[in-house]
Amino acid sequence: MQDKHISLAHGNGGRYMRELIADVFARHLANPDLDIGLDAVPLSLAEGEVMFTTDGFTVQPLEFPGGNIGSLAVHGTTNDLAVAGAEPLYLSLNAFIEEGMEIETLDRIVASLAETANEVGVRVVAGDTKVLRRGEGGGLYLATTGVGVRQSDSQLGFDGIIDGDRILVSGPVGDHGIAVLLAREQFGLRGDVFSDAASVLPFTRAALAHDGLRFMRDPTRGGLATVCHEISQHTGLGIRMQQPDVPVRDAVQSVCEMLGYDPFYLACEGRVVAVISDAQADALLADWRRLPQGDEAAIIGTVHAQTDKVLLVTELGGERILDELEDDPLPRIC
Amino acid sequence: MQDKHISLAHGNGGRYMRELIADVFARHLANPDLDIGLDAVPLSLAEGEVMFTTDGFTVQPLEFPGGNIGSLAVHGTTNDLAVAGAEPLYLSLNAFIEEGMEIETLDRIVASLAETANEVGVRVVAGDTKVLRRGEGGGLYLATTGVGVRQSDSQLGFDGIIDGDRILVSGPVGDHGIAVLLAREQFGLRGDVFSDAASVLPFTRAALAHDGLRFMRDPTRGGLATVCHEISQHTGLGIRMQQPDVPVRDAVQSVCEMLGYDPFYLACEGRVVAVISDAQADALLADWRRLPQGDEAAIIGTVHAQTDKVLLVTELGGERILDELEDDPLPRIC
Repeated sequence: MQDKHISLAHGNGGRYMRELIADVFARHLANPDLDIGLDAVPLSLAEGEVMFTTDGFTVQPLEFPGGNIGSLAVHGTTNDLAVAGAEPLYLSLNAFIEEGMEIETLDRIVASLAETANEVGVRVVAGDTKVLRRGEGGGLYLATTGVGVRQSDSQLGFDGIIDGDRILVSGPVGDHGIAVLLAREQFGLRGDVFSDAASVLPFTRAALAHDGLRFMRDPTRGGLATVCHEISQHTGLGIRMQQPDVPVRDAVQSVCEMLGYDPFYLACEGRVVAVISDAQADALLADWRRLPQGDEAAIIGTVHAQTDKVLLVTELGGERILDELEDDPLPRIC
Repeated sequence: MQDKHISLAHGNGGRYMRELIADVFARHLANPDLDIGLDAVPLSLAEGEVMFTTDGFTVQPLEFPGGNIGSLAVHGTTNDLAVAGAEPLYLSLNAFIEEGMEIETLDRIVASLAETANEVGVRVVAGDTKVLRRGEGGGLYLATTGVGVRQSDSQLGFDGIIDGDRILVSGPVGDHGIAVLLAREQFGLRGDVFSDAASVLPFTRAALAHDGLRFMRDPTRGGLATVCHEISQHTGLGIRMQQPDVPVRDAVQSVCEMLGYDPFYLACEGRVVAVISDAQADALLADWRRLPQGDEAAIIGTVHAQTDKVLLVTELGGERILDELEDDPLPRIC
C-alpha cells in the first residue's frame, strides 16, 4: 500500500482490500482458527451451553487514556459473555472504516485489539471490512459478536432475585465515561482519569463460585443507574442504594460536579454489578477484594420488596429517586 | 416515541433506547430465543460442526428494487454459511443508526429483515444499536454475524480443486450491482433491473448432494471475477471462462455498456459459484435448473493447470486476462 490513508478501493473486494486485510487485520489477529480465505469458519466448542452476544462500538476519540476502540470492542463483548456466566472463546469483527483514515492509526488499533483478545483468551475467527465515504464514517466503527460456553448448572437471571438480596459493584464507577469525555478536549480539562476498560472475567469467575449468585451485569451505557433500573423493571422489586458506599474516584467526582454529570449514569467498561443472596454477599466481597483491581469493590445496596423504585440513600440519610436515563449525557462513549 | 426521527437519546442506554428496541427491533424480530433482557443468549445447536461468519452492510440507498439493507444483511450472512456447506440457524444484529433517520424507514427495514430471517429459517437472537451523530452515519449500517451447523462429512475448500474441474454459476450476474446503481438515480437512468438478493440455500443444498463438489462461494463484492481470482490465488491453477456462457441479463449488459462497467466485477447477492468435478458438472447443472430462479444456471468455465491466470474466452475465440479488481467500481453496494 503506497498511500497511507484508507481509500474507497480498500473496500471493494479487490486487491487493495485483500492487502489491507492481510497486512493489517490478519497479521495482528493471526491464530490457528482464522482463515481469511473462508466464507465461514468452524468453531471447536467445549461441553456446555453455547452463548452468543453482540455489540457495536462508536467511541470518539478512537484512542483515549486506558484504551481504544479496539481493546474496548474485545472487553465489551467478552464482558457480556462473562456476566452471563460464560467463558468467552471466539469473536467476529466488523470494521466500518472511513475513507481517509490513517492506516497507521487503524494498524495500532487492530494491534491493540489483537493483544487484548490474546490476554482475554479469545480468538477472532471471522471478520469483514467496509469502507465508508469521507464524512460518512466518523473514523471507525466496530461491531463484534462473541461466542462462549457456559456450564449449564449456572442459573443466572432476573428470575432468581428476591427481597433482601445484596448488590455489589467490583470497583469505582464512571471512569470510562470521564476518561473519554476528557480525551475529547472540548472542555479544556485534563485529568488523571483512565478508562476502567478491562476484562471482568476474574470477577465473574469468582462470583460463579457462590451458589447464592443471582445475576451479573456490566454497567456500560447508562451506567450503574441503568443496571438498577433493569433489575427493578424485570423483577418488579425496588432497590435501595447507599450513596456513600458506591465507589467513585475523586477525580471523576470533581469532573462530574464541574460539568453537571452524575457518575451513576456514566459508562464503565471493566466493572461488574452482581446481585447475590444476603448470606453470601460478604464472602463474595472478600473474594473480589483479593483480586487485582478489586480493592475498591463494595456492597452498595439491597433489593427491596416494599418499593418498586430505585432509591438513593444520601450521606445524611435522605432518599431520592434515581430516575431512568432519558437524555444522552455522553454520545459515542462506547 | 413522540418524535418520528432517531435522536441521540435513542442510543444512550436509557428509556428511549429501551423503547426503540422494544417497539422496532424486538417487535419484528420476536422469536422464542430472543430475550432483550439478556447480555448473552444460549444457542441450541444440532449435531455437526458449528460454523461462524460475519458481514457488514452499508448499501446506499437503503431500499432498492428487490430488497433493502435489512433483507440484504440476512441474505448476505446466511449465504456465507450456505456456501460453506452449513445450514444457517442464528444471527446477531448490530445497527448503527444515524441521528435524524425516520423511524418509519427503520421500522420498514427491520420488518423486512425479520421477514427474510423467517423465510430463510434463522433467528436473530442477539443485537445492539448505536446512534451516530447527524452527518456521521450515512443513514444506517448493519453488521450481522451468523451461526450455522455443517455436517462434518463435507470437505469443501480450495484444496480439493483440480485441473479439469468445471465452474458453474446459479444465475445471471450483476443484477444487484446494477439495481443499486440505478436506484441511486444519479445517472438519470431507470431500468427494470431488480436485485438478485435471495437465499442461495436451495442451490447449496442441491450441490452438497454431489460428492464431486469442491467449493462454493457467493460472488458478492468484486463479483464473479473476484471469486475466480480467489480460486486461482489459493490453488495456483488458472481458470478459462467462456464469456458467451456467463449469463448476464440484457438490461444489465446495456447499463454496463452505457456506463462503462463490467458485469463480471459487479456484486450479486443471490448467486452461487460452484467448482465441481467434470464428471458431475452436468448433473449439478440439471439439478440447479430445476430450482425456482435456477433456469439460467450455467457451466461457465474450467479450471486449468497450464496457466495461473483468469482468462476470458470471447465469442470470437479470443482470450483476454480478467485482471484482479483494483479501483472500486461501485462503493456502498452491499
